[in-house]
Amino acid sequence: MTESKRENKNGNKRENKTEDRAGFGGPLYRKLREYGESDYYGFHMPGHKRQLGYFENPYKFDITEIDGFDDLHHSERDGVLTRAQERAAGLYGAEETHFLINGSTAGILSAISGCTRRGGRILMARNCHRSAYHAAELGGLKADYLYPQQIASPGINGPVLPEDVERALAEKAAFSEQEKGRYAREAAGRFQAVVITSPTYDGICSDVRAIAKICHRHEVPLIVDQAHGAHFPFSDYFPEDAVSAGADVVIHSVHKTLPSLTQTALLHIQGRLADRERIRHFLSVYQSSSPSYILMASIDACMELLETKGEALFREHAQLLEIFREGCRDLEALRLYGAERAPYFDRSKLLIATERAGITGGRLSGLLLERYHLQLEMSAPDYAVGISSIADTESGFARLNRALHELDRELAEGSRQGREKTWADAGRFSSGGLPRPRAALTAGEALEREKESRPLSECAGRLAGAYVYLYPPGIPLLVPGEEITEQAIGRIEKWLAAGFPVQGLAEGKRLLTVRS
Amino acid sequence: MTESKRENKNGNKRENKTEDRAGFGGPLYRKLREYGESDYYGFHMPGHKRQLGYFENPYKFDITEIDGFDDLHHSERDGVLTRAQERAAGLYGAEETHFLINGSTAGILSAISGCTRRGGRILMARNCHRSAYHAAELGGLKADYLYPQQIASPGINGPVLPEDVERALAEKAAFSEQEKGRYAREAAGRFQAVVITSPTYDGICSDVRAIAKICHRHEVPLIVDQAHGAHFPFSDYFPEDAVSAGADVVIHSVHKTLPSLTQTALLHIQGRLADRERIRHFLSVYQSSSPSYILMASIDACMELLETKGEALFREHAQLLEIFREGCRDLEALRLYGAERAPYFDRSKLLIATERAGITGGRLSGLLLERYHLQLEMSAPDYAVGISSIADTESGFARLNRALHELDRELAEGSRQGREKTWADAGRFSSGGLPRPRAALTAGEALEREKESRPLSECAGRLAGAYVYLYPPGIPLLVPGEEITEQAIGRIEKWLAAGFPVQGLAEGKRLLTVRS
Repeated sequence: MTESKRENKNGNKRENKTEDRAGFGGPLYRKLREYGESDYYGFHMPGHKRQLGYFENPYKFDITEIDGFDDLHHSERDGVLTRAQERAAGLYGAEETHFLINGSTAGILSAISGCTRRGGRILMARNCHRSAYHAAELGGLKADYLYPQQIASPGINGPVLPEDVERALAEKAAFSEQEKGRYAREAAGRFQAVVITSPTYDGICSDVRAIAKICHRHEVPLIVDQAHGAHFPFSDYFPEDAVSAGADVVIHSVHKTLPSLTQTALLHIQGRLADRERIRHFLSVYQSSSPSYILMASIDACMELLETKGEALFREHAQLLEIFREGCRDLEALRLYGAERAPYFDRSKLLIATERAGITGGRLSGLLLERYHLQLEMSAPDYAVGISSIADTESGFARLNRALHELDRELAEGSRQGREKTWADAGRFSSGGLPRPRAALTAGEALEREKESRPLSECAGRLAGAYVYLYPPGIPLLVPGEEITEQAIGRIEKWLAAGFPVQGLAEGKRLLTVRS
Repeated sequence: MTESKRENKNGNKRENKTEDRAGFGGPLYRKLREYGESDYYGFHMPGHKRQLGYFENPYKFDITEIDGFDDLHHSERDGVLTRAQERAAGLYGAEETHFLINGSTAGILSAISGCTRRGGRILMARNCHRSAYHAAELGGLKADYLYPQQIASPGINGPVLPEDVERALAEKAAFSEQEKGRYAREAAGRFQAVVITSPTYDGICSDVRAIAKICHRHEVPLIVDQAHGAHFPFSDYFPEDAVSAGADVVIHSVHKTLPSLTQTALLHIQGRLADRERIRHFLSVYQSSSPSYILMASIDACMELLETKGEALFREHAQLLEIFREGCRDLEALRLYGAERAPYFDRSKLLIATERAGITGGRLSGLLLERYHLQLEMSAPDYAVGISSIADTESGFARLNRALHELDRELAEGSRQGREKTWADAGRFSSGGLPRPRAALTAGEALEREKESRPLSECAGRLAGAYVYLYPPGIPLLVPGEEITEQAIGRIEKWLAAGFPVQGLAEGKRLLTVRS
């Protein structure tokens, strides 16, 4: 550097800086680029699949809020970001849409913080993403849970039933006529918001339309975490989207199933029940005051693609999916799940059930990765899930199809000669079934208490001091303040034994508990 | 798309997807690229100045947490992210360092939430970034303020004095010996953390070393928002960095003055006073569960550059700065500020005072932009600030030097013949002087109350219902719950009259107030 400096005392140094690029990359970038150049094919996020999307060197156009480039947190009437967000709102048929550069996480935190008041009550599905629990914790909210149906085979969470929402709201929300209206829901003890996840990580949808009607009759806003369903509006092949179905606040991850960069998402607001001012305030609280123009530009680029080529791309995507699903009908040991559940299942999710094959989803993922260089999104005890998008190719689906059939033949053979014992055998429902622990403290209260770490085996009857969950998908098995049951301990031990990524444990199979 | 599809029924569609890139960009990207290709030279963030840094098409290597790529929220013992963060810790001499992909905002929120308990007390500098106020709001904290010294000319905030910290802590923190120790500071009424910003947006540093000593004597952790000083450790030309000075938690923006992508930052933790478990928990609360590998890779790339070429690059940067500062000594009307304050001023900040010239900082910025295509970072009533970094070039500094001298000749001439009346004349201190309104409610309480919007002129005596601030720098003039004084109203009217970006007002010069 100093050398080249000496060489051109008066020259423009930009050239030298450019030469420096050679040595400017870092181990993480080199590892990422290596993967990008490999023949590994991804049936995982992000939805652009490293194929659909092109920006030049991001350092070339990464700027801050300078003149003419608007400000995400205070976008101007005719600013470039205002126009970009208005176009997104138009595409989704929403009254108001915000770009998120801190993922759906920021959207869920803002939606819940914005719709509730400190210390209030919230009705949420127990299979919500951890960010919903974090929002409850931050707001000191008392959370009541909606327990989704259980689908026995494969063991996954099913939909949240409208009648369960009705029952819960009827109990807590009955109030007199003159109390009705916007502020009524803030009266103590009444639910200030209902939160559900649809679709789930696995692709299961709830009847959002029916649930929204019920919430509105009770004057309670419905927040739908539709992070995994941002593609729904663009093809009838997918379930109805939550904005059309009437939800008040909807969060869409545009990097999961659409071609936008990781960590990008959208938040939509409709109707009069959600407190828009408050939600906007929290968007500026939970998101960087230096939002990345690279991330914002990738959302904008994604919207342009949907607007100009979306119809053709999705028609083609649906065709490829149908061909793939048809081709998998003859699997004997493995099973491509879900078509039978449409329109309440997202058929772009490639959920491959493994119980019949007598192996775990983790084992299937491992085989696909090692032998075929096919990377799925996640694996659970009884199944594995691949994510597909408009960026997927005919040849990509063909590779997965061939691989599944080869493995299927072997596994069918194996299972005819007494199948290898699988972890799933140790207990049906074990992956999907959600325990119903008693909450002695709210998460917010529990996290203020002193903690102590104890061996897993000695925690029964104590109160959890941390969130414990499998990631992915990040649904808490235990929430701080909940009583630790033998059932929960057994579940955790089984997960550890099966080698699943259990998060929230202290060093060496210990649990953080509230000091009593 | 469908056409090309028809053309190669059996082929690998990747090529077609690639062709699609042509039409895949979007207005925002096109506008950004246009700016990137223009001859505009930036003395603003990000520190890479669109010059120092090279990644290929970001879509090529943007992935999610797949096998082998670790997980920011649960990085593994020998994972690639653990190693990257350990290297960063080594470079900064910190015991523990975390990559932040939601900016310094996420770091400040996590540091304050992690060091305090709900409803506790915090001692913070009144010139903290709005994220510190948001953290106090989220935690329902009672905030007491440290008022920085005022520098009359140009009207800017000076340092926070150690004796002011000592006085405040002595009042609130006197407690008996046996109470001492980690949990003592949680007793009601005692400060749970001290938060200061050093350097300020303008480059003014406080004596962090002395303040840290005082905090530690009182067993209170010191959090330093050093977002604008991430480059301090790499040259003696800059003030001492807060990690070396003994602060317990330090937040560094790596995109502001170092060559990393916008929205990236670092959080360092040292010593026993900060609750590390709690801070780590909040990092996973306030940051996306789908962190961008592009952003993380840019932090890693920046660390590698610092490690391998940092010394040479900073030696050169300091030389260029010295030459530039020498060259500006002869300015008559304009004034390059700060050298006289070193070592408590960051000489990489190009703070150009305009009072002698009889124009506002905004006017100076406008002239530099229109006539010379030089974009500064921010402008205030009496000055404008440019940000320089190791990415700046000899020719860039030369351009600014020539421009300032040309303008200076005109302005000196103008001021000799009765100078044009400036807004600054309307009131000295008006940009820097911080009002000391009485807080009738905490921000957290105020934001739970119903609001009403009133004309600015009718707000005296009422309680603010929103934050009101100039952005940049984003320091609140009014915090929710504070009494609105005539002085504050006058300030806001002056700001509006001078055309400065006042944030937090309702439509049409109205203020949101707490309904009484």
